[in-house]
Order: sequence, then structure tokens, then C-alpha cells
Amino acid sequence: MENKAITSRDTDFAKWYTDVVRAAKLADYTAVKGCIAIEPNGYAIWEKMQEILDKKFKELGHVNVQMPLLIPEELLKKEGELVAGFAPEVAWVTEGGSKKLDERLCIRPTSETLFCDYYQSHVKSHRDLPMLYNQWCNVLRWEKETRPFLRSREFLWQEGHTIHATKEEALEETKRMMDVYHWFHNEILAIPSITGLKTEKEKFAGAEFTLTNEALMYNGVALQAGTSHYFGQKFSEAYNVKFTNKENKEEYVYQTSWGTTTRMIGGLIMVHSDDYGLVLPPRIAPKQVVIIPIGKGDKPLSMAHEYKELLNKNGIVAYIDETEKSPGFKFAEAEVNGIPVRIEIGERDLENSQITIARRDTREKMQVSLENLDIVNYVSELLETIQQDMYERAKKRRDELTFEAHNLEDMENILNKQPGLIHGMWCGDAACEERIKEIKGCKSRCIVEEEKIDDKCVCCGRDAKYHVIWGIQY
Amino acid sequence: MENKAITSRDTDFAKWYTDVVRAAKLADYTAVKGCIAIEPNGYAIWEKMQEILDKKFKELGHVNVQMPLLIPEELLKKEGELVAGFAPEVAWVTEGGSKKLDERLCIRPTSETLFCDYYQSHVKSHRDLPMLYNQWCNVLRWEKETRPFLRSREFLWQEGHTIHATKEEALEETKRMMDVYHWFHNEILAIPSITGLKTEKEKFAGAEFTLTNEALMYNGVALQAGTSHYFGQKFSEAYNVKFTNKENKEEYVYQTSWGTTTRMIGGLIMVHSDDYGLVLPPRIAPKQVVIIPIGKGDKPLSMAHEYKELLNKNGIVAYIDETEKSPGFKFAEAEVNGIPVRIEIGERDLENSQITIARRDTREKMQVSLENLDIVNYVSELLETIQQDMYERAKKRRDELTFEAHNLEDMENILNKQPGLIHGMWCGDAACEERIKEIKGCKSRCIVEEEKIDDKCVCCGRDAKYHVIWGIQY
Repeated sequence: MENKAITSRDTDFAKWYTDVVRAAKLADYTAVKGCIAIEPNGYAIWEKMQEILDKKFKELGHVNVQMPLLIPEELLKKEGELVAGFAPEVAWVTEGGSKKLDERLCIRPTSETLFCDYYQSHVKSHRDLPMLYNQWCNVLRWEKETRPFLRSREFLWQEGHTIHATKEEALEETKRMMDVYHWFHNEILAIPSITGLKTEKEKFAGAEFTLTNEALMYNGVALQAGTSHYFGQKFSEAYNVKFTNKENKEEYVYQTSWGTTTRMIGGLIMVHSDDYGLVLPPRIAPKQVVIIPIGKGDKPLSMAHEYKELLNKNGIVAYIDETEKSPGFKFAEAEVNGIPVRIEIGERDLENSQITIARRDTREKMQVSLENLDIVNYVSELLETIQQDMYERAKKRRDELTFEAHNLEDMENILNKQPGLIHGMWCGDAACEERIKEIKGCKSRCIVEEEKIDDKCVCCGRDAKYHVIWGIQY
Repeated sequence: MENKAITSRDTDFAKWYTDVVRAAKLADYTAVKGCIAIEPNGYAIWEKMQEILDKKFKELGHVNVQMPLLIPEELLKKEGELVAGFAPEVAWVTEGGSKKLDERLCIRPTSETLFCDYYQSHVKSHRDLPMLYNQWCNVLRWEKETRPFLRSREFLWQEGHTIHATKEEALEETKRMMDVYHWFHNEILAIPSITGLKTEKEKFAGAEFTLTNEALMYNGVALQAGTSHYFGQKFSEAYNVKFTNKENKEEYVYQTSWGTTTRMIGGLIMVHSDDYGLVLPPRIAPKQVVIIPIGKGDKPLSMAHEYKELLNKNGIVAYIDETEKSPGFKFAEAEVNGIPVRIEIGERDLENSQITIARRDTREKMQVSLENLDIVNYVSELLETIQQDMYERAKKRRDELTFEAHNLEDMENILNKQPGLIHGMWCGDAACEERIKEIKGCKSRCIVEEEKIDDKCVCCGRDAKYHVIWGIQY
């Protein structure tokens, strides 16, 4: 049974996306232009993302804090590149408590400035370092075109801000946190992602360099999935964050920041979902198993309870749909909401000593004999299989949409047919990046290798310095 | 050893409070006027509060969502009392993306308007009800005088917003959530609190009535610790939130909201802490036990690890202070940070087959023989004892500062000597409330009983209708 509320993914991808967001009750538009309401089903995914990442951050020694929402204009202005990068897209508070303010306050688009200001007055000695802080919060960027989760004026994220006594340590941190995102995207979200370096043009405003994790959506459009920035001493000089080092000399701290956002909910949808609604990898699904008893007798329901308790006790999140809806309606609802596994316990099935188990990702239905059935083991293995299969399927799709270009004509031919990830060498000249952008807005996603390149620039034909992946982005 | 960074609580309570906040590294001032940075030690308490409350909310069927930060002026204005109550203290965004906005947007001081707007387009039938939503977020109120945690322009909170098909259900929810706060304050925070009804003057702007949980600080000043509001159909009429009831007739929904905030971190300090720093009840302490090995030998450290693992495995959060600081410094640091139990494992003590265990609340040190010592059991019981003792001590203090007044002279005599909770009957006339406020700003905290009162109004001497508790508030 096709879901009539959802446009086919192959007919109109953009429409399909918003249809899935609405049908699965993940988010909706609000009276506030460009800002969404994240509904219970969507927020539960974010809570699960927070739980998994937060645990990992803490294992690595990070602690959570909360800096203010507002940034005084003077403070924002201290680092020139940052303000140039963000000024066009901030919102300003100019009135408070019925009075016009003496100084405008912007709503944080990111919090480097506030962290620097804090660090500046709290760091004295190398013994205070490193400071490994993170915060979960909302930020605001005045985007012109918005799309639920992928790009909205307000979004939720985590921003890690760390300071270190040495360049080596800060570089290590930048790399380590990128590895965390890579692990999170690949292992938890089942989204194959590529780690690389942003070009000068695409790096974070004010960073010395930016590492990025790039993912490819089902339609061949790329998504920046998480970034980790190395600032060196740029901000610490601008904000005067100094410490006394082991040689008893004053030195500016070495700094990093790194973040990922609610946009990854959009990424999950665009990589895995289908015309029947949401499909969630088991490791990020807030609810992993739905049990649907069918028939009036006591047996299906009591068995449902038995299974639910067994599964929950073993760390699998299972629930029973006991509502008065018809079984068909319940199936469709579990499907549109992306519950990875559905267990149907029907009276007739029980007469034949069997139950039906369906997996959401392939929509396959299996008759499972109750003889010697270890339900916990069966479901655990099935969830693991689904997780792996989803990753493999996403990787296959990505590989199919990964191309190689040797000149501008190649680039044009590829992009005119189908967006995707395009491997193409680059001389390092920003003018070439600009020229390539003329082809449907194609940008450098990341530089993937830094060893010597023995090839020509895909744009100008001169000797290439970098192996770059290009693509059209969200 | 007295903590020199902390002013004595009995000398200057206000100074003592901010000294404790700074010495325990809970929060600090920022470049943003009236807004604090919540530091790791402070934020860890908030995370623990969130964990405990969120679990309880979910057990009661609530789900988390996220509404926008900004509210368009037109939307805010729809409910007259709300806007009149909050307009003087909101901050307005008037510029975004380098342009002046057509309509001002205020930063949410509370989110009834946004929830109503959401509900309005998502509720159709009684089958959609109840909707039991909650959100954890930041809000902003342009306060003139601020104090870390207790009153700051931006603060963190949770706001529950529920809608129901019947008045009875909504009334039940209002009461149930007040019971949750009462349980949380008394059982978890060890803060004895009183539940009552706010007067018309003191209730939430736009509510039909407000239930409140009132606590008393060490210095006799009262703190509103959590509120639960019943809106009836006031907001649903203003925002047109209708549903088709079981009789197939259109009806406006019945609504509630309820919240508690980071101010309770301030409450914890003001009720329990002392001149040596923070004192935390074990059930809310992010770290419950610190283990300090003393001496160069291997034995103290290996035993520390053994204890730590045993305690952690049994659900007690223990950590080892392995830094290079001196034992005395470590003791003082654990003390100022309010770690409930400190285990000192010294080489010399071990020679006598004993260790030292200190409790933070009483600062008592106990020599504990290792013979037959079940460390998990010992510490569990000690934590439980501390929790109960802290509650009893706070209750004793509150009872000592609870008075009875029969006329204005009584009120004045009491308040001129010492602030506290004052039981005094009231006729129900707002003019009497105004008159009482002239005595050092004393306000009604809550109405505690609604049965017939056989007494005279503490202000005007006419027949009293309500048993009220009065007090000076934060």
C-alpha cells in the first residue's frame, strides 16, 4: 500500500522530502518565517543524537557549559574575518525592556566570541589547560531560503570550543573530533561520509583550516555533515586569551571549535527514506520495534507484553500499539514513522505456531516459527543486519553517483545529467573554483588527499596540487 | 580551614551567595549585561535536574518538542493579559540579514503563544487529545536587577504545555505537575516546599489560576520554585484552538502550562550551602563521592581504583582526585564544590587498617575500620543519611523562620526583625495586598487552604476568606 500523502522520490525529490517530514510528523512550518517547530517524532531523533554524541564527548574529557544567547556588537567585531563572514546573516536585538538599546546585540550565529571572552578572564597558567568545553544550544542565521532541518533560520546544534597550550594538542583535537563525527555518521546514522579539508574559500570564517565530513544524499546533492575548525592563535590574539607556559612565558592559546546540527535529521531522511515514509537506522531510531497484536483474543496481547518486556530488558526499545486503529492502519503508521522492525502477532498465525516479522528498510515480511524462537536474539540480529544493510545500500548509491572529471567539459557533462560527487584535480587557484561554480553552483566539497598529485587542474589545465571532491550542496 | 574566598553567610548573605557561586565555579558574569555563563560545575547540576525531571515527565506521557525562539509581534498580541504582563520585559529583534524587519519579533519570554499557534493547526478531534508537550530551552526577560541563577535576563527552563478535551482532565494535569515539582523539591533537592494557590495579583498573566511551590532560603527570603498554570479556554479562544468533541460539537481545548528553571540552582545554594562553599544533596550531586589517595605508595591508589569501580558499578558516581595538588588542597576543593562524601585513603591509616570518610554537610570525619567493611553499603547508607539530614535541617530552619501574624503591627514587627514565612489571614481584597507590600515589599506567597476561615484579615480586620502565607521574595 503506497502512502498517498507522499510524492514519489523519483518524481519530485524536494516535494518528497517535505512530504516525508510532514507525514512522519517530524517538523512543521510556523508563524515565524524560516523557523520550524520540531515535533515529538523529530525531537526524539535529536534527543537520541544528543545522547550518543554527548556520551562520546564526555568520554573524551569534554564538559558542557552554557554561554549567553546574545552577543554585544563590539564583542562580535573583534575578529575581522568572523564578523565579515557572519554579519550579513545575523539578527539584531535593538530594543529591550521597552527601551532602545545603546548597543545592538546579535543573536549568536556561533559562539567563538563568547567563549573567547570567557576564556580570556579564566585562563592564567598552562595548568588551566586544556579547557574542553561544549554547549548544546540554539543559534540563528538569517537565511533567505529555508528548508526544514536542512537550512532554517534557527537551528539546534552542539558547538565544542577548546583551548590548548600547544599547537600539536589543538591540531590533535581538531582531528579527533572530526573522527568522532565520521564515526557518528558512518556507524550510527549509517551515512557513508568522506572526511577532508575545506578550501580557503569554503572554510569557516576566521579558521586557519576546516575539516569537514561530507555526505551524499539520494538525489546526488551533497551535505556538509559536521565540521571541525583549527583556529591556531587567530582568535586568542584578537580576544587576548593568554596563558603562562611551562617556560614561564606568556603565550596565546591554541584553539579549536567543532559542531553538528539538527540538519542531520534532514540528512537521515534524504539518504535512507523512501516513498512509504521515514526509514531510520536502528542505532538512531528512538523506537526500534513496534509490536502489533491482531485479533480479539487474549493471547496476542499477552504475548505482545511478554515480548516487549523481554526486548526492553535487553536494551531494545520496543512498544506495543494497543490503539483502536485497524491493523492495516497501524502497519502504515509504523512504516511512515520509520520503526525499523514490526512484529505482528495474529491469532491465526498463532494457530500455526508462528508470527510475522517485517523489516522497514526492505519492507520484507517474514513468517517466523515460534518453535525454539529466541525473540531477543532474533530481533538483535535483525536490527544489526538492517543497520549494516542500510549503510551498504547508501554506500552503493553514493558510489553510483561518484564520478571522475578531467576537464570542464567532463564536469558539465556529468552535472547536466545528474548531480553527484565528482573527483577532479585542482591547481589551488580560487579563480578556478569560481569558474566551476558557474556550472550549476558546483562547489568544492573537500580536499581529500594532500600527497603529491600527478595530474592537471580540472578547470585551467595547469599542474594540479590538490585532489578535490566537487558537488552541488544543500 | 575556612575558605577565604567566601564571605561569611551571617555577615553578608548576598555577598556570601555570589562568593559561593564563584568559588564553586558554578557561573560567572559575562560581557552581556544581565546574562551569565553557566560553567561546567553549574551546568552539571542542571543536566542532573533535567535528567530526573525529564524521566518523570516522560513516565507521565509527555513528549519533548522545540518551538521557535522568536515570536512575531502580532502573534504575541492575541491574548491581552499575556501581552500586558510580558510586554514591558521582552527584547525585540528589529533587524535581520542586514535589513530592518517589517514586523518586530520578540525573543520568547514564555511560549504559550507559539504552542497555541501550533495546536491550532494540529488539533481536529478529541482523538488527537490530550497533547502533552514539553520543551527544554532558553527564554529571555529584560530584568533590571539580576543575580546569578536567581534572576537573569536569559535563563534555561522547561515549559510544559498541554491541551485537553475536558476541564477535569486539564485541572488534574495542573495539579499532577505541581505534585511533580513538590516531589522534586522535597525528595531530590531536599528543599521543603509548600504548595498553594497564587492570588489574582500574583498569578501568571493570562492564567485562570496558578499553583505554586514556595521555598524558604536560609536568610528567610522566599523563592518561587515551580509553577503550574490552568488556562481553561482563555488562550484557546484567543488563538482559536478548537476540536470536535465526542458529541461531534466544536469546542475550545482546555489548557495548562508548567515550568521550573535554572533558578533552582540558586535555591539549592541558598538553602544548603555554608561558609565553606557549596553543599549538595546526594540525589542531585553530579559527583557524589571523591576518593583521595594519600602517600607515595601503590596501595592507596590501587584501593582508590577498587573502591571507585565498586561504587560506580552500584550506581554511585565516584571519582578519584589523582592530581598533583596537596591533600589539604584537594579536601578544600572537594568541600567548596559540594561533593557529598569524601574518602581519604592514607598510607598511615592503612597501616592501622582504617580509612577516613568525611561528609560534606556536617564536615564530620569518621575513622572507618576496614575490617568487614562493605564500602558500597556504607556509602549508600551515608548518602541516604545526608539526604535526609539535609532535608530535616532545612525544614528546621524554615520552621524557625515561620511566623504568625494577626494584624499589620504583627507583620511589621516580624519583618523588621527578620524576613520569613508569615501566616496571616486575608479578606481577598487586592487593596490589602497592596498595603502589606508597603512593609519591605512583602507579598502573598500563596493561599494554602481554601476551607472556611474563622478569623480576621491581617490587614483590614474584616472577615478573612483565605489563609495566606506572606513573605519577601527573590
